Amino acid sequence: MPDVSPAKWHLAHTTWFFETFILKVWMQRYRAEVPQYAFLFNSYYNAAGDMHRRDLRGLISRPTVQETYRYRTSVDECVLQLIASANDALLDEIEPVLILGFNHEQQHQELLVTVIKHVFAQNPLFPIFVPAVPTPSQHRPGAQHFVPFDEATVPIGHEGHDFSYDNEGPRHRALVHAFSLSNRLVTNGEYLAFMEANGYTRPEFWLSLGWTTACEQQWQAPLYWEKRDGEWWNFTLTGFRRVDEAEPVTHISYFEADAYANWDGARLATEFEWERAAADLAIEGNFVDRERFHPAPAPGGEQLQQMFGDVWEWTRSAYLPYPGYRVAPGALGEYNGKFMCNQMVLRGGSCATSRDHMRLTYRNFFPPEKRWQFTGIRLARDLS
Amino acid sequence: MPDVSPAKWHLAHTTWFFETFILKVWMQRYRAEVPQYAFLFNSYYNAAGDMHRRDLRGLISRPTVQETYRYRTSVDECVLQLIASANDALLDEIEPVLILGFNHEQQHQELLVTVIKHVFAQNPLFPIFVPAVPTPSQHRPGAQHFVPFDEATVPIGHEGHDFSYDNEGPRHRALVHAFSLSNRLVTNGEYLAFMEANGYTRPEFWLSLGWTTACEQQWQAPLYWEKRDGEWWNFTLTGFRRVDEAEPVTHISYFEADAYANWDGARLATEFEWERAAADLAIEGNFVDRERFHPAPAPGGEQLQQMFGDVWEWTRSAYLPYPGYRVAPGALGEYNGKFMCNQMVLRGGSCATSRDHMRLTYRNFFPPEKRWQFTGIRLARDLS
Amino acid sequence: MPDVSPAKWHLAHTTWFFETFILKVWMQRYRAEVPQYAFLFNSYYNAAGDMHRRDLRGLISRPTVQETYRYRTSVDECVLQLIASANDALLDEIEPVLILGFNHEQQHQELLVTVIKHVFAQNPLFPIFVPAVPTPSQHRPGAQHFVPFDEATVPIGHEGHDFSYDNEGPRHRALVHAFSLSNRLVTNGEYLAFMEANGYTRPEFWLSLGWTTACEQQWQAPLYWEKRDGEWWNFTLTGFRRVDEAEPVTHISYFEADAYANWDGARLATEFEWERAAADLAIEGNFVDRERFHPAPAPGGEQLQQMFGDVWEWTRSAYLPYPGYRVAPGALGEYNGKFMCNQMVLRGGSCATSRDHMRLTYRNFFPPEKRWQFTGIRLARDLS
Amino acid sequence: MPDVSPAKWHLAHTTWFFETFILKVWMQRYRAEVPQYAFLFNSYYNAAGDMHRRDLRGLISRPTVQETYRYRTSVDECVLQLIASANDALLDEIEPVLILGFNHEQQHQELLVTVIKHVFAQNPLFPIFVPAVPTPSQHRPGAQHFVPFDEATVPIGHEGHDFSYDNEGPRHRALVHAFSLSNRLVTNGEYLAFMEANGYTRPEFWLSLGWTTACEQQWQAPLYWEKRDGEWWNFTLTGFRRVDEAEPVTHISYFEADAYANWDGARLATEFEWERAAADLAIEGNFVDRERFHPAPAPGGEQLQQMFGDVWEWTRSAYLPYPGYRVAPGALGEYNGKFMCNQMVLRGGSCATSRDHMRLTYRNFFPPEKRWQFTGIRLARDLS
Repeated sequence: MPDVSPAKWHLAHTTWFFETFILKVWMQRYRAEVPQYAFLFNSYYNAAGDMHRRDLRGLISRPTVQETYRYRTSVDECVLQLIASANDALLDEIEPVLILGFNHEQQHQELLVTVIKHVFAQNPLFPIFVPAVPTPSQHRPGAQHFVPFDEATVPIGHEGHDFSYDNEGPRHRALVHAFSLSNRLVTNGEYLAFMEANGYTRPEFWLSLGWTTACEQQWQAPLYWEKRDGEWWNFTLTGFRRVDEAEPVTHISYFEADAYANWDGARLATEFEWERAAADLAIEGNFVDRERFHPAPAPGGEQLQQMFGDVWEWTRSAYLPYPGYRVAPGALGEYNGKFMCNQMVLRGGSCATSRDHMRLTYRNFFPPEKRWQFTGIRLARDLS
Repeated sequence: MPDVSPAKWHLAHTTWFFETFILKVWMQRYRAEVPQYAFLFNSYYNAAGDMHRRDLRGLISRPTVQETYRYRTSVDECVLQLIASANDALLDEIEPVLILGFNHEQQHQELLVTVIKHVFAQNPLFPIFVPAVPTPSQHRPGAQHFVPFDEATVPIGHEGHDFSYDNEGPRHRALVHAFSLSNRLVTNGEYLAFMEANGYTRPEFWLSLGWTTACEQQWQAPLYWEKRDGEWWNFTLTGFRRVDEAEPVTHISYFEADAYANWDGARLATEFEWERAAADLAIEGNFVDRERFHPAPAPGGEQLQQMFGDVWEWTRSAYLPYPGYRVAPGALGEYNGKFMCNQMVLRGGSCATSRDHMRLTYRNFFPPEKRWQFTGIRLARDLS
Repeated sequence: MPDVSPAKWHLAHTTWFFETFILKVWMQRYRAEVPQYAFLFNSYYNAAGDMHRRDLRGLISRPTVQETYRYRTSVDECVLQLIASANDALLDEIEPVLILGFNHEQQHQELLVTVIKHVFAQNPLFPIFVPAVPTPSQHRPGAQHFVPFDEATVPIGHEGHDFSYDNEGPRHRALVHAFSLSNRLVTNGEYLAFMEANGYTRPEFWLSLGWTTACEQQWQAPLYWEKRDGEWWNFTLTGFRRVDEAEPVTHISYFEADAYANWDGARLATEFEWERAAADLAIEGNFVDRERFHPAPAPGGEQLQQMFGDVWEWTRSAYLPYPGYRVAPGALGEYNGKFMCNQMVLRGGSCATSRDHMRLTYRNFFPPEKRWQFTGIRLARDLS
Repeated sequence: MPDVSPAKWHLAHTTWFFETFILKVWMQRYRAEVPQYAFLFNSYYNAAGDMHRRDLRGLISRPTVQETYRYRTSVDECVLQLIASANDALLDEIEPVLILGFNHEQQHQELLVTVIKHVFAQNPLFPIFVPAVPTPSQHRPGAQHFVPFDEATVPIGHEGHDFSYDNEGPRHRALVHAFSLSNRLVTNGEYLAFMEANGYTRPEFWLSLGWTTACEQQWQAPLYWEKRDGEWWNFTLTGFRRVDEAEPVTHISYFEADAYANWDGARLATEFEWERAAADLAIEGNFVDRERFHPAPAPGGEQLQQMFGDVWEWTRSAYLPYPGYRVAPGALGEYNGKFMCNQMVLRGGSCATSRDHMRLTYRNFFPPEKRWQFTGIRLARDLS
């Protein structure tokens, strides 16, 4: 798949980020040892120069993994020297780019988890990434409970001095109509009911583009699912195992999430509804820090749960600029704004996201047909 | 191009619409003379049965044009008989579908104009559709003037008993932040300045997907433009002629409209801003009724002008359901809702639209890369 | 299908041939009325100037059929005038090109028959081209009989003053090893036995490229065959009707012909074997002159039959130049030589070929995956 | 490129060959440790079971290189045990498959050299595979000399007890007309003259399919050539360096070889002409054993030279079965016969071929558009 770059590329690319946006800018005597890395490891920053074609990354056998680590260590050392020798004024300049670099690296750490899953899943040997964490005895989550919210004009977006991406601002007011939101994610068991109701062969539930995509790609189940002897199994980072009906469904596209909601007589939430509902919740959940590498069953109870971690929740909001948004100048301005087309917003983070990378206002985005991230469904309803 | 169906197909398809949704429903003794037409002339209504592949329509040499007219006449006569013999209760049932059929046909009339333009433009003979209407002496439109609007919570969408499409409702309130809107459309002359500033080769102005598309398709100018001996010409329905700098630019994609706005330090309006700004204007303009078949220069003055007719104005709003929108049941429910993905909203109608087909709340939509409709640009700006 | 040009294109193209290679060369006062036709109706003669893309031919709605006939009449008249006014020396020059033009037109007449079949077959209405000719009561052809031929060095290729294409020469000697040749074509009934033996799902009978093609295109039967209620029907120019087991199988690719032969423990003949076997036969058979437009059952008896007409017989010979072959200079040199790659030779003509277009030494050629010509199978065997 | 499999795949696949066709057949107690390898490392033997998609091979990160070597060692040991314990009757059975396995492995060794070249060439770092062997002072080869051959009926193909592939037989007589053959390969210098004569932009020299391919792929020079500051460089396994005009041109397709010959007023030889001319020559030359990894300039003199080694010589013969050829039964029968379509024969071996893998009768074959093997040109002419 052209979306998937080799693991060592991610290591080199996050290193390149620090080299390009910090060392080359502020370290006067810095000379790249291998100038061609600037070409090889640029992902998509047009303003930072020409770049190597994404779909060819898998063909590059050199530099080796060992050489990539050497490159990493060398850049790390230079950055540390730069910081050690910088005065306060310089530190103030460097700090925001350094923090952006850390956040950028956290994003690639999440990608690495999903890349490894994708590559392993292509392999008929079904390699195991980590042994499964023993889990408490399984319980079936109870029926979904829909938590109501009144109409309100609410603040949306990030504010303040902590780090956030530019696409999270400017903070502004938005009129959110009354709605209700399911207290938990849709489970595999519920999704199986959709499949058994022939959800994948009834166009009336699907967006037109979703229907075309599902037919062309012959979707009959979430990604990584496989039927064996009449039962559904799925490939996980802890091995190939039976689908657990209590776990949240994951690795589904926006099209499937939308079709499921239509079949159920519900809909997906907008990102504004989601942000309003999550506004007062603690940012806790099944993040990558737990090293479970798979979404977990809901704990139970009627309160909102699984809002953070487990799976990225598809919203029905297209990824668009907030009122007043302007792209930052220069290469770093390419970080987010130029992707604001034909993508849908996802909220809340997943079991592959770092907990301290997450924020209430965090806007992730993917094209509606993608399924290789940990993506899932939370239902919403209109309240008249 | 797979989007373009032959002219006779449009005639047959609009006929099929009345046959399928009126005659087959309410005329008990009705028997289709050629049952296979139901398959051939269904465009995309899954619930109305199987359909012929869109990209194969051009291959069908039978029925002939003459037979298609016969089919049309026959269906027309049956519909008239049905209405003549219907009582008031039945008429009440039929009326909304009949009106939908008329509106559906108006849409295909607009498509026909743009299909003919597209087919003629492929032809090295450059056939002329109609001779040019003599126009008053050309004047250069003055500089753009930006009309300011304060923040307000405004009603959006259709209300009342007149016909509208389902995607125009339900009417609801929306919070629109302060903005200003250009009083007129962007002209060819202004667009040429963008081209001369290397707009087509500077990625910093473009959405990522737009940049990829422009490179792949080797866009260097609007569709139908061609450079001859150092000057830009364009193919119009009144012939192949020099680009007129006073006319609004047209046949550009959303990507080009967005890149132009970025280059100019402005942006496109949201559909809500547009609807707010147009709320009090009369629905008048250069519609197909004038038989000009091409956008016309702005009349001049600082007031909002060209809001209706001339060209469909790309908005920065993705085509999404309004709060509270539900798809209607049955085949007619497929009319709009299932296309709400990866398309952008356009407002105001064009020189190929019927004047009485247009409404303030009318939402047209196209994928962002399409250029074969009469589409154009109106700029907006934030007001802080 | 990009191979298929509209019927009126064939009319215009054969006219263009006379205009370009006769009128423009020898008629000094000749001026093309519509110079762009030279671009529109050139098929593949690079040396005769730029040309319109083949796959776009279907998009050209102008010139109309009526205008194309006018063009034809006008060129015909000029050619007649030229001939009437030419002296003997000029006539000697013109004659070979004129005769080539006639032969070229005969080839397009054959294409027209198969184009009409292909276009009608796409149409769910299954139009009928001509009503079926009443045929004598059907008989089952007897078992195939293999006629033996000893090893010999034989003359191959055309010689003499009559017209032939350049690819039929030079005449030369070839060593043909001993072989035997089936006295008749493979029938639909025999081909059904191959299908029932799962011939389409057993890779061991297929060339590697054939297997890939058959899988990708999901071949399960000859082109134009369709299963209805458990029985095979096929679309013919006389309508959609049950497959007649006595008729020769047709509309099969080289890959299918080769797979059939392998399944049967036989092989296809080389073109040299075929030419040797046919050397003394009269050129008679089911040609287009009979207006049957479909291959007919073998008459019976042990002698070689159906060698001419009915279906083009795939040989196992790649289409390559004969020893001593040189491409003629100029545009007419592009007629044959440049296609000598990745095509297989077919021999004997079909029910869509004119009888007086056929010769013993005639070499037709098509890529191995093509199925839309009247192509069929005659088996051969090694004799040790 | 989908043709190129990772290096470790070649190691695993040649191991699989011995496991599948020797151990699983004759070693009764043999149990595959990792049964899925049978799926992963089957290249194209349908009869040996399902196989992994070729274009996905690059995605398989497991087994690792280390595990692949373990697999190799394990299979090697089993084969040695089997041989040690076999009686003479069993040895007689095993021997031909063992020898086939060795030859199969030699083919993959050649592929490995060209795969490494291809992968390194994609890498902007231009890695060096081996340092260049110091060569004697360069001399310009003299003008080509054409060696004449009379018409004769000659034996073609392999005979006797030594190993050969099935496609080299049966040995048979063929009538070869009089011809002459260039005493040496076409050089880079001569090929540059073709390029400077606009050979890549003049369709009159090209096969139709070649012309289309050259345009689509934008060929302007052999593969691995790049223009820098007005001079041609090429990537070799000993580094990126200036094109040496004395070396034979290589990495050209059949289309380019054929176009070059047409431009020069010559042609390529048939494989029968080549075999006749080489019949009495020793099998010596610049093979991989010399570890030069690149073709070398001709030694000089008027005698036939460079017939073996340096580059595979494109012939004008399509890859077809010899008279009397029958595919062997079972999986090993898939080795050659099923590729006899749309490929051209190459003769003589290259600088990546093992010397003891080569034979006078050896028939290599590639599709006419391929350029990544060491392929080159030797000219022939008709003698009337």
